[in-house]
Amino acid sequence: MARNASLSGFPEWLPQERLVELHVLDILRRTFELHGFSSIETRAVETVGQLLRKGEIDKEVYALSRLQEEESDTKRETTSDAKADAALALHFDLTVPFARYVVENAGYLAFPFRRYQIQKVWRGERPQDGRAREFTQADIDVVADGELPFRYDVELALVIVEALSALPIPAFKLRVNNRRLAEGFYRGIGLADTAGVLRSIDKLDKIGAEAVAELLKAELGATDSQARAALALASIRTEDTSFVDQVRALGVANELLEQGLGELEQVVSAAASRAPGSVVADLSIARGLDYYTGTVYETVLVGHENLGSICSGGRYESLATKGNRSFPGVGLSIGVTRLVSRIVGQQLAVASRSVPTAVLITLADDDSWPQAQDVASALRGRGIATEVAVKAEKFGKQIKYADRRGIPFVWFTAEDGSHQVKDIRSGNQTAADPASWAPPAEDLQPLIAVVPSTP
Amino acid sequence: MARNASLSGFPEWLPQERLVELHVLDILRRTFELHGFSSIETRAVETVGQLLRKGEIDKEVYALSRLQEEESDTKRETTSDAKADAALALHFDLTVPFARYVVENAGYLAFPFRRYQIQKVWRGERPQDGRAREFTQADIDVVADGELPFRYDVELALVIVEALSALPIPAFKLRVNNRRLAEGFYRGIGLADTAGVLRSIDKLDKIGAEAVAELLKAELGATDSQARAALALASIRTEDTSFVDQVRALGVANELLEQGLGELEQVVSAAASRAPGSVVADLSIARGLDYYTGTVYETVLVGHENLGSICSGGRYESLATKGNRSFPGVGLSIGVTRLVSRIVGQQLAVASRSVPTAVLITLADDDSWPQAQDVASALRGRGIATEVAVKAEKFGKQIKYADRRGIPFVWFTAEDGSHQVKDIRSGNQTAADPASWAPPAEDLQPLIAVVPSTP
Repeated sequence: MARNASLSGFPEWLPQERLVELHVLDILRRTFELHGFSSIETRAVETVGQLLRKGEIDKEVYALSRLQEEESDTKRETTSDAKADAALALHFDLTVPFARYVVENAGYLAFPFRRYQIQKVWRGERPQDGRAREFTQADIDVVADGELPFRYDVELALVIVEALSALPIPAFKLRVNNRRLAEGFYRGIGLADTAGVLRSIDKLDKIGAEAVAELLKAELGATDSQARAALALASIRTEDTSFVDQVRALGVANELLEQGLGELEQVVSAAASRAPGSVVADLSIARGLDYYTGTVYETVLVGHENLGSICSGGRYESLATKGNRSFPGVGLSIGVTRLVSRIVGQQLAVASRSVPTAVLITLADDDSWPQAQDVASALRGRGIATEVAVKAEKFGKQIKYADRRGIPFVWFTAEDGSHQVKDIRSGNQTAADPASWAPPAEDLQPLIAVVPSTP
Repeated sequence: MARNASLSGFPEWLPQERLVELHVLDILRRTFELHGFSSIETRAVETVGQLLRKGEIDKEVYALSRLQEEESDTKRETTSDAKADAALALHFDLTVPFARYVVENAGYLAFPFRRYQIQKVWRGERPQDGRAREFTQADIDVVADGELPFRYDVELALVIVEALSALPIPAFKLRVNNRRLAEGFYRGIGLADTAGVLRSIDKLDKIGAEAVAELLKAELGATDSQARAALALASIRTEDTSFVDQVRALGVANELLEQGLGELEQVVSAAASRAPGSVVADLSIARGLDYYTGTVYETVLVGHENLGSICSGGRYESLATKGNRSFPGVGLSIGVTRLVSRIVGQQLAVASRSVPTAVLITLADDDSWPQAQDVASALRGRGIATEVAVKAEKFGKQIKYADRRGIPFVWFTAEDGSHQVKDIRSGNQTAADPASWAPPAEDLQPLIAVVPSTP
């Protein structure tokens, strides 16, 4: 069980838990780089104006002020205008800062620009399970200057599936839908307020089909058959491309619907052949954010659906604009803290030890510290994490130090210069040479092992 | 030349610059882990009360408020008390948060606790060269529960020298002094306000010896010979342990002085033999922070002294207390952003390319994308970062895409299934097998090369 954070909504990890998080971050970075994504980071703060451009999120934002300014009230009033201009706040996601970064640096970037970005974000929401006030997101996006071929929507699904598959987490389902498909369908059945329909459909999980049908009728003036058709579409879920026939069977004709069907078919077809079982066409997925225009993705951990989506995103026709240039993109964001909180909280995976150290070099006498450092240097030079005892306490005490820290091996150097190394778990002790000895591969570094679930 | 940040004091890097920063961070992490330091992160925020406990830094702190609360003024007044209780601010260093972390988690940590922590910190200071408002620090500390042997002061100097030596930076000097040595000396010559003397000595670089002598006389009532003695001590700088004799030659007898001399001798002696030329005993080093009690460290880049210290720290007898437990420690903090800003700004080192990608798989026709993905998977499986073209444009256009992004190799698959790979820099093209081909080691990943300085 994870301890409670001393400040609600701001989780912190113990060293052994942090190793799980580092492992997750390392896998993500490596996967993204193997697929040609460049790392960037943006500053933690944006101007308030930048953050509020999209509306709807103002209550979640943490604004910044210099403590001294806050305390001197008279000064405050005279400078309030200047302050408002430059008012800063912590970013609440990595998409808004990325959009600004792309516009500011467009002249220096090669498009389509592929970037990954792993950083903390902050939201002043009420903390709850799976929702923190400070949390790490790992985003990938491809952004073009002008036009971005649809194939990137397929590629990003495959990249994310590869990344998530490598993590120490339970099975997941990447649920994919397409806004064009849904909007075309709604128009095809005569419902013009497609955003309104999507908002209602988005409530399916929470309030159920019947209540959604009532909403559609009461708020959007849908007829009974229109509401039934919209719900029929939302009920379609397939792990292969058979959703296409299921949609066609509903008998709705619309050009945008056809385009969306074709796009979603490409994503699901590629995923079904390259990563069978991990992607599902789920025609109920709406995603709240208004700027998605085509593909939308979200992801649930099987058996942990209550956690909410651990990876979401989609296609946006215009991430940003600069003069008459427009930057369309497609991207996904992994909720790293949400994932790690669940892994750590339910011990879905654990680190084999809490310290990087594989070997402790003991001291026979206090003056042998420099020689012990030589041994340590030789081992470190070959990638073996090594500590040196600081005092020539009784060997039993030095071994106990290693044991307490979870260091698997202790090293002894005799007066004649010969060396021995002992596995303190088995008690096995053998002769060793600093220039060649290495621990077994599984002891070289802390390993993160998935704990088999007990049904 | 680095571009100007769009928000003064909040630097951001282009992808190619970010590779330099990542390289620096990777080296630090690897070195710290090889020496048995565990990674932790603390939340970005602390309570204002926690941050201000040490006094003197209030004007630099960024306080947080929820934007919505700030906008509703009436609500603000009624809740101001509650707000003050839980007032949050961004941390301005990693030491204060680490002290809190140690106290909160003391029951879960194995002492002496060795941790490294690499995170952003924020200070609302006026930005200037080498001083940002948001910057990354990389800290290492060893903290004990009760007593921490002095040898850790020696060890940490060696760890930091090893870490800095591995970075793509010019030569550096780790300047070491000892508070006990200085305080014992001042007391030995009859100056009781040792903190006052240290404060004056700290101004040596800025105002010169004569002005410091005047300060000592005017503010601390020092006699001419006391002032001269204090300055004589501060003028001692040696790369070996000869400083001991130079101090003794000043003829001052004091027990604390002797203890300090012995401690500093241990640090300099170990460094002189294990890392000759990188450490200097500099008896003028005072370090402003009051909590240092013994060893103090600071570091300058040779030829870049105007940058200020790029790595500082020291020994503190009590990092934190919990009931009647006290946690002494010794640690250093590397100014990563300060270093990287200088490297990037003066192009002291550059990345060999701006993308991780080593190979672009071209498409002969649009339908061959799945086969191209197979080739890419084979290469990625062996650690080769690979992108796949999304469209079967003319090969010239696909090669141009690779060239524009700095991808060194392009891959062609013929209709008969045979493969060729071309180095677009040399034009060399050879047959290749996805299961075995690899780029030369220097092209596998972007390399960070130090640019030789032109005198």
